Parts: sequence; structure tokens; C-alpha cells
Amino acid sequence: MKPTASQADYRYRVEVCYTPGQFPLYKQDMGIVVVIDILRATSAMVAAFHHGVKDIIPVATVEEARAYIGKPGYVAAAERNGEVVDGFSVGNSPLALKSMDLKGKTIVISTTNGTKAINIGKEARQLVIGSFLNLTALTEWLLKQDDNILLLCSGWRDKFSLEDSVFAGAVTDRLLESGKFGVEEDSSIASKYLYQAARENYMSVLKAAPRRKRLQQLHLLDDVKYCLTPDQATVIPVLQGDRLVLLEH
Amino acid sequence: MKPTASQADYRYRVEVCYTPGQFPLYKQDMGIVVVIDILRATSAMVAAFHHGVKDIIPVATVEEARAYIGKPGYVAAAERNGEVVDGFSVGNSPLALKSMDLKGKTIVISTTNGTKAINIGKEARQLVIGSFLNLTALTEWLLKQDDNILLLCSGWRDKFSLEDSVFAGAVTDRLLESGKFGVEEDSSIASKYLYQAARENYMSVLKAAPRRKRLQQLHLLDDVKYCLTPDQATVIPVLQGDRLVLLEH
Repeated sequence: MKPTASQADYRYRVEVCYTPGQFPLYKQDMGIVVVIDILRATSAMVAAFHHGVKDIIPVATVEEARAYIGKPGYVAAAERNGEVVDGFSVGNSPLALKSMDLKGKTIVISTTNGTKAINIGKEARQLVIGSFLNLTALTEWLLKQDDNILLLCSGWRDKFSLEDSVFAGAVTDRLLESGKFGVEEDSSIASKYLYQAARENYMSVLKAAPRRKRLQQLHLLDDVKYCLTPDQATVIPVLQGDRLVLLEH
Repeated sequence: MKPTASQADYRYRVEVCYTPGQFPLYKQDMGIVVVIDILRATSAMVAAFHHGVKDIIPVATVEEARAYIGKPGYVAAAERNGEVVDGFSVGNSPLALKSMDLKGKTIVISTTNGTKAINIGKEARQLVIGSFLNLTALTEWLLKQDDNILLLCSGWRDKFSLEDSVFAGAVTDRLLESGKFGVEEDSSIASKYLYQAARENYMSVLKAAPRRKRLQQLHLLDDVKYCLTPDQATVIPVLQGDRLVLLEH
């Protein structure tokens, strides 16, 4: 991928797309797509690799995941609207996933927003998975890449999501510091400001969001805290064909 | 319009929609729509009413506006991509508009983003025009309304726009202070944070945005400063049928 032609003194762009629906407006010239669904799909994926899963197959429909229930070597996971789908033993909770025996297994997972974003972003040259759990490892790897980077937020039913864009702002902030990357889009600048406003206390910012109240009602506060704690893992999941595998880095 | 049914202690909602394309996801239960295109369509509209224009007809196409060139009693205005369209004497510059003789006249205007947002939002019970120029007058009027309010940003080619969302955050911030209004959407909370980050110096935030550099290249810096200066007017344009008129307030 050629660097952006402009008079700017950076060599590559890092941009933030707030929702999968807006991907067509932002995808041009973007070689690397980072899919972000902080609450909770991409956090769960990073946690799963950190706890020894072999690979993850993200699928669009619950029925595709259901076919793997009880199949040896597989963990079938499905979440809709924050809850485990009937018939499944696990949804998109990182804490529930990492309490299972994952070593060497394949997870087949369908979630409300996150797996949709993966499906939309997979036309990129390279698609990787981001979350607070692997923030520093991901950022350090991105800094070494010679390509434009699009941070694709999964959002919430194709609406803007605070935690996804705050995380995208954290990555943007670090990449901009290097001088190698620059931004063109207002969404990228706004993400950086949101991160700077939120970084002292993610929970205090997110608790202003009514959706968080709903998650608390579902007794998921431990899960939320876990998803917002940076640098618990160094793994970077990368899409290879139809499945996520560990990126060598 | 009934207030939102919830256990919240506010009576009405104020929400922010970042782009016209996302309007269908945010419009439910919204009685009042405020259309925002800070650079520069809605700033120009407020400036025009402040300087005595009788009414404004926003039209989707340049050709509709062109039919009014030279017609007595009318000012034909058209802007595309920040520039005056060939054949027109004025585009969407508030400074250029207010230097003209507007008293008692009708402006017919077509712009890249702002008139599109008006067209999309006009199914609301009431559609009004917002800009920094009429920030306090608009906010005080909104505070008196018993209805849910959607702040509809015009964006830039259906992408997120920093200045539109910062302005929406300024309105949101004031309405939340009253206790009468509350937010449900993450986009509304993020706008408030963006406004709080930007309010000390709008220009310093916006100059980080490459689009602003482009506007500067077009020698529009005076226009930009004018559009970012709050409370130069007390007029509130409101849509009545196919045209904007002065709201009695």
C-alpha cells in the first residue's frame, strides 16, 4: 500500500471508523483493519487466545455456532443483546470463557456487533483484533507496520459506542506520537480527545452511558472492569481465511 | 410527544446524531430536530435572518437554486465542496451573505451537506436551525420545550464532523444542566465531552482537523472564526412547509 499522497510529514494514516455501516466511507487505501468491540467480543477473543485457544471462527448467525455445540475440540459461543443465547453454555463474556478449558480448542462464536464488524472488515489486506487487554502489544506491532491503519469500531447496533471509540483514541494517540502516522478524519481526532478525557478513569466516563447501567443490571460489572483493564495479554489475533489465529510478532 | 418511559429522573431526552445517514437509527420519539452545519450552512442561515432576510428556501440541487438567479426579491446561493458554484454570486459564506442587501428578501440555497440534513430531518414535528451564532437563544428556547430533541449534525459527506458535534455537545451540556433533559445515546455523551475539551478554544481543536487546513487555503479563515463565535444573534430559523422562517420566541 502506498503512503497517502499529501504534503503532510507523516508517512501513513491511522483513522477511526465509528460503525460497521460507515466502513465503505473510510476503507479506501486502508491496508490494516483493527476490529474493536470492547464490550465484549474482541476482549473475549483476546482473553481466549491468552488462555490457550488454538483458533476462533467468527460466524454471522447463531445457527452456524449452534452446529458446534457438544462437538469434541470445539467451544460454541453465542451472544445476542448482552446475554448468552439459549442452548449455549457461553456468550461473549471473557471471564466466563477464560474459566473454561480452552487449551488447543477452536471457538466458534457469533455476537451482536463484533462478528459483524469482522465480516465487514475482512476485505482488508490484514485484519487484527484489538481490545484494552492487548493495547500495548497491538500498538507496538502497529507502529512497525508500513501501511495505513483503520480502527473499525463495532458500535452498538450500528450506532456510535463510547468504549470502542475511546479505545480507538488510545491507539490513535500512541500512533500519532511516533510521527510515522497522521490523521485526516475528524472522527480520528475526536477519538483522541475522548481518550484523553477518559484515560484517568474509564469507568467514570462509561458509567455516564445508560447502556452501562444495563450491563450492570445484568450483573456484568466484573466483566466490564476486566474488559477495561489494559495490557493483561500480549497476544494479537489475526484473521487467516475464515478464522482468527495467533499473529507471530 | 410522550416523555421517554424509563426510571430516569429526567422528563425528556436530548440526543446527538452525527450524520444524516444515521438519522433513521436516532429519530424514534424525537419531536424536535435541530439541524447543525457549523461550517457553514446553518451559520449562514442564522446570519441571514439576523440581517433581515424574510425567508430561506433550502433546495437539494444546484439547478433548483439556479432558477432564482436574477429574480427580483430573491438571492440565489449555491455551494459545493466549500466553493461558490459557477454562475452564483454567493455560496454558504455568512460573511458574504451578510454583506449583501437581504432585507425582506428570500434566499434560495443549496449546499453540500446542510440542505441535505434539513431535507432528511423535515419529518420531525418541528425543525429548527442551530449554530454558534444563536447558541444561547436556541438553548433557552429548547429548555422551554416539552419534547425530545435530536441534534442532527450535517457532517461532511456523511462522515462525522468535529465542529458540528462540538456544537451539539454545547447544547447537550446546557440542556443536561437543567435536569429536565437526559441522554441515552453514547454519541450524546461523547459530544458533551468533546465540547468540554474544546470550549476554551474552538480554533485550537479544529485546526487539528485537516479539513480546516483546506478551508484556510481557500482564504476562509475569517468565515470560520465568525462561524465559531457564539451569540451574535437571537434569531431561530424554523421550517414551515418548504421554507425557513423566523421562529417567534
